Amino acid sequence: MRRIRLDIAYDGTNFRGWARQPTLRTVQGTIEAALERVIGSHVHLTVAGRTDAGVHATGQVAHADLTDAQWARATQVRRDGIVPGDPVDPLARRLTGVFGQYADVAVSRTSTAPEGFDARFSATWRRYEYRIADLVTGYDPLERLHATTVKAALDVDAMNDAASRLIGLHDFAAYCKPRPEATTIRTLLDFAWRRDERRMVVANVRADAFCHSMVRALVGACTAVGEGRLAPEDVVTLRDAGERTSEFKVLAARGLTLTEVGYPADELLAARAEQTRNRRDAE
Amino acid sequence: MRRIRLDIAYDGTNFRGWARQPTLRTVQGTIEAALERVIGSHVHLTVAGRTDAGVHATGQVAHADLTDAQWARATQVRRDGIVPGDPVDPLARRLTGVFGQYADVAVSRTSTAPEGFDARFSATWRRYEYRIADLVTGYDPLERLHATTVKAALDVDAMNDAASRLIGLHDFAAYCKPRPEATTIRTLLDFAWRRDERRMVVANVRADAFCHSMVRALVGACTAVGEGRLAPEDVVTLRDAGERTSEFKVLAARGLTLTEVGYPADELLAARAEQTRNRRDAE
Repeated sequence: MRRIRLDIAYDGTNFRGWARQPTLRTVQGTIEAALERVIGSHVHLTVAGRTDAGVHATGQVAHADLTDAQWARATQVRRDGIVPGDPVDPLARRLTGVFGQYADVAVSRTSTAPEGFDARFSATWRRYEYRIADLVTGYDPLERLHATTVKAALDVDAMNDAASRLIGLHDFAAYCKPRPEATTIRTLLDFAWRRDERRMVVANVRADAFCHSMVRALVGACTAVGEGRLAPEDVVTLRDAGERTSEFKVLAARGLTLTEVGYPADELLAARAEQTRNRRDAE
Repeated sequence: MRRIRLDIAYDGTNFRGWARQPTLRTVQGTIEAALERVIGSHVHLTVAGRTDAGVHATGQVAHADLTDAQWARATQVRRDGIVPGDPVDPLARRLTGVFGQYADVAVSRTSTAPEGFDARFSATWRRYEYRIADLVTGYDPLERLHATTVKAALDVDAMNDAASRLIGLHDFAAYCKPRPEATTIRTLLDFAWRRDERRMVVANVRADAFCHSMVRALVGACTAVGEGRLAPEDVVTLRDAGERTSEFKVLAARGLTLTEVGYPADELLAARAEQTRNRRDAE
């Protein structure tokens, strides 16, 4: 058995989110189908961030466990076992062949996962970007699939002020879609707003993990601040009230992109796996 | 009669080019239909750059001549002639309403054209951008509609060297799709390649005017240089041979965007219009 890591990017517009669903086009379903076509048997993907319908990713990470026979199939290009041409990452190349040119999903890299690696449980943080075109940006049809528009000139400094107040370990229930038995306590590691070279208003948000719709609620609250409907300190008051409110909107999925997932160094992963094994043996 | 200037942007992916065609979705057809819906009667658009199917624009310019009655309809929002709310550019706002949110076309601004202005004949230059994702860039599904991919690591310095050799007044027949009675003598004002912040290989191309498919042929020749199939000086030899060649490809429309159209200052336009009138009177 060999665990492989897959680095994945997709335009979420025409996907009903990550998680496989019967009859609907999803990212997981599409990549698992491509893997099955390459390998000849089903392979299950475990993902770092289960993105919602319409959410994009440039830095998604998943893993799959392949039997030795599956691994041999995954990396051989011809039936005689010879990999013709450039042997760099034959699985990623074959998946690209299945997806086709200009596909809305790509597996940019596959690699043997380090010992103890789990795409979901080893991840120590996830980073998202949220993009907004306001009256200053102007509407750009070329960005329509990857930015939300708001009918105001946003005060980016005020939004950045609000964002910085939310950083740290807190109960983010007010910014989470309620789900039974799911914790809403999270560590927000980075949250900052800037206007980029195209005058787009862009948030960089990083946390150990996010509860459901949390990024879109956080950026929605800051946007209410940018529009002058809330004061920067209100985002803290609302957070501490601990309940969902109608004072801000959960912004649309189209502006959201998962850009990066953080993992511990390989040695740490191995040491952690060793600890888990020892603990299991001791029990 | 009042001539208005329209500043236009579009994602060319789902358009069959600028020029109106019966039964096909074109940019001209779409904007003229929206104008007719707002104004109540047909208005013809004259454009600076008649882009091909699949070509994008962020800085397209067109003009339309409106009768006083059409102008009144274009700028009134209610039947009683009152423009409610913010009166800034009511025509652009109404067109946005017709196109709908997240449309693939936008009229970002309408304005009364200066005296002597003609979107096509007054234009002194057109600027295009061409974007290529190579092996260094990697394939990004989020950029798939606005960049061409090539399966090589491009030598951008060599491409830039080649491009700089083409600048100036020349017969570009070798880089033009032949059209009877159309001149192929053009002044290439700027032509440079760079790798942008996303490692995308980007060309900036500016000329007084372009003959058909000229930008896509020019970037195709430079790409052959970047791949090592041609030497930088070959692009000049090919140009001076004066005939289309199979030594390079005309690259795909998806990577091409019209970004800017240059016009003389208003005083110059007015002086030129005056000259034309005097010449006409003298004849």
